[in-house]
Amino acid sequence: MKQFNWKLLNKSLVSRARTGVITTPHGKVNTPAFIFCGTKAALKSLNSKEAKESGTQIILSNTYHLMLQPGGEIIAKHGGIHKFMNWNGPMLTDSGGFQIFSLGYGSVAEEIKGRNINNKRNKSLIKITEEGALFKSYIDGSNQLLTPEKSISLQRQIGADLILVFDECTPFHVKKDYTALSMERSHRWSKRSLETFQIEGDYGSCNGSAGKQALYGIIQGGIYQDLRDISISFNLENNFFGLAIGGSLGSSKEQMYEVVGYTASKLKADHPVHLLGIGDTKDIWKLVKYGIDTFDCVSPTRLARHGVALSKKNNGKINIKNASYREDLFPLEDTCSCKTCVNYSRAYLHHLYKANELLGFQLLTLHNVYFMNALMLLIRDAINNDTLEEAEKKWYLT
Amino acid sequence: MKQFNWKLLNKSLVSRARTGVITTPHGKVNTPAFIFCGTKAALKSLNSKEAKESGTQIILSNTYHLMLQPGGEIIAKHGGIHKFMNWNGPMLTDSGGFQIFSLGYGSVAEEIKGRNINNKRNKSLIKITEEGALFKSYIDGSNQLLTPEKSISLQRQIGADLILVFDECTPFHVKKDYTALSMERSHRWSKRSLETFQIEGDYGSCNGSAGKQALYGIIQGGIYQDLRDISISFNLENNFFGLAIGGSLGSSKEQMYEVVGYTASKLKADHPVHLLGIGDTKDIWKLVKYGIDTFDCVSPTRLARHGVALSKKNNGKINIKNASYREDLFPLEDTCSCKTCVNYSRAYLHHLYKANELLGFQLLTLHNVYFMNALMLLIRDAINNDTLEEAEKKWYLT
Repeated sequence: MKQFNWKLLNKSLVSRARTGVITTPHGKVNTPAFIFCGTKAALKSLNSKEAKESGTQIILSNTYHLMLQPGGEIIAKHGGIHKFMNWNGPMLTDSGGFQIFSLGYGSVAEEIKGRNINNKRNKSLIKITEEGALFKSYIDGSNQLLTPEKSISLQRQIGADLILVFDECTPFHVKKDYTALSMERSHRWSKRSLETFQIEGDYGSCNGSAGKQALYGIIQGGIYQDLRDISISFNLENNFFGLAIGGSLGSSKEQMYEVVGYTASKLKADHPVHLLGIGDTKDIWKLVKYGIDTFDCVSPTRLARHGVALSKKNNGKINIKNASYREDLFPLEDTCSCKTCVNYSRAYLHHLYKANELLGFQLLTLHNVYFMNALMLLIRDAINNDTLEEAEKKWYLT
Repeated sequence: MKQFNWKLLNKSLVSRARTGVITTPHGKVNTPAFIFCGTKAALKSLNSKEAKESGTQIILSNTYHLMLQPGGEIIAKHGGIHKFMNWNGPMLTDSGGFQIFSLGYGSVAEEIKGRNINNKRNKSLIKITEEGALFKSYIDGSNQLLTPEKSISLQRQIGADLILVFDECTPFHVKKDYTALSMERSHRWSKRSLETFQIEGDYGSCNGSAGKQALYGIIQGGIYQDLRDISISFNLENNFFGLAIGGSLGSSKEQMYEVVGYTASKLKADHPVHLLGIGDTKDIWKLVKYGIDTFDCVSPTRLARHGVALSKKNNGKINIKNASYREDLFPLEDTCSCKTCVNYSRAYLHHLYKANELLGFQLLTLHNVYFMNALMLLIRDAINNDTLEEAEKKWYLT
């Protein structure tokens, strides 16, 4: 029996929107889907049982963070990350490239939000060579070299179902020449990632890892259509299970839509397409129409820690610390069926944040996770019925 | 139907240990029981569903904290604290006295641990008069007066099932004269508490509060047997549902055992007896034999936040941050059936604390709460079978 499979279910007649199913040894992912960030092998303040009960299909973890703490070997000794963190569903790990370069340069999100990333904050990247990336550990300051071979070995030890090639996440504020050179190097790194994967792939697992894995390639090329074309050709020529859209997505939302729209339009139905690091609700409504199958973003859990609940109204967000919620007996969202909305008032949640109670993070995170999963379910239903435009309008009204 | 009831079930033949049932409008509490501190209307990092599933029978909240944030009115508007915090089981509130005076003087725990409480840290108490206690709010620095009448009104608004008279929690480091004067004033405050309670008690609820309530008296007298005798007589003469042992319990564990032992020995089977603020496992094994029915202590939840799991071995505690647990694939306690021990390794929990993941607090808190509830269940069974001594020996061995 084939352990990994990508099956297209329905395609919209009016856009490139589509539904599908990614099958993994740890279960299926109905797409379009949101992948929640369990960065360090834990969803921030939510246990895996509650994540599951809130509709979560798939979680990602970050190779960069896990290699520094606790290290791949300890996870392998547990039989892989699923057992380590008690999550029996599908998982994805990134290659570590994104964190090295986003912490080294400044993040994609900062670029898209137009922030100047030329400040010296968090510059942990020491140098990039053909071999790999040398950076400073934020745990103990030690020098660490991450190469394509090491990234794949680590991801083998960690044992997520879906894993990524090692790449340089090129920043926006570089010349086109650099973007092209960086892309070519990332392609060579992709080849080395794939070779390492194929050698070890024969074993199905490595060093006590959890089982078989499938590899995603990453499409580079920054904001340049000709470079994106080259990278798409490269990735399609190689034997990747899935494709991720990576690299610089520009410096504004509009540019990001343009880059993602162009890139996705060149892809066929053969691979599930993941968009790295983007996941605002408005972006999701927009980008599923371009044919994006999976999204990931830290925002649902990060916003919760800042007291922000996702909402259909209020321009998408409720800041529960706002004094206006002090005596508000209503739930966060009156149309939401999550345990937080069913059992607690805004006034109680406001109180928890005022009183610095950890339970506040837990209850808002649960809402935000449920909210994103409910949104994706609704989007899948709408694509299957080819009513996506109407569903989007209705969603903002109710 | 009588909404409150105290029923003795079994008495040990070899000690004063006993089992019983406290019936409240929100359910029954099988005693001896541990009351968990949901200080500010929340168990720290544990939601009420998980608290229930971990065997929790009863939670307490602190009038002192709740009067400052969010205030009694907001809780009353929710229909009381049970609805406010989504806990449908029995609840207790203290009167606020303990916090005012422990924050004003230094805490009982500090005294029992022999710490010098004459430092100036956290001195929020401004003055004590016949009317009540004037203190400074730690929220906004405003002056606040808490009187017996106000404490009872607040506890009516909050709406816990079991509520306490307003008292001065006399410190240890005062002369006997002061302890006697303080006790007499606390008795007058008790009378005023009872009078306020009886007036409002006719309504069953106040300002939208949750329902009927039952009042506990507090036995004062510090370490002096003659004063304890006077306070016991006072409390027995008045119409209290339950009795709490309060005031100074001395400056050492031995003195605490002596004071509690003496006081409890003078009480009959007519009231459930609560011991305020004590709840180490060793203390519980010792003090149930003196006839204590309920205990409360912040330790299970507070220890968890410091990375300490309760254990039968290891002198009672496992510090999960210890490097020796880095690669430890075993659960916290191999004999424990809590969800943390069933689903997670010590290495994973160690990782969560090293990585500053909020989930760590949640999982250790869940273990500690389950651990205390399992201990109390075992103690109740042992008392019912009159095998308490054997049970204690066996508990430390397995």
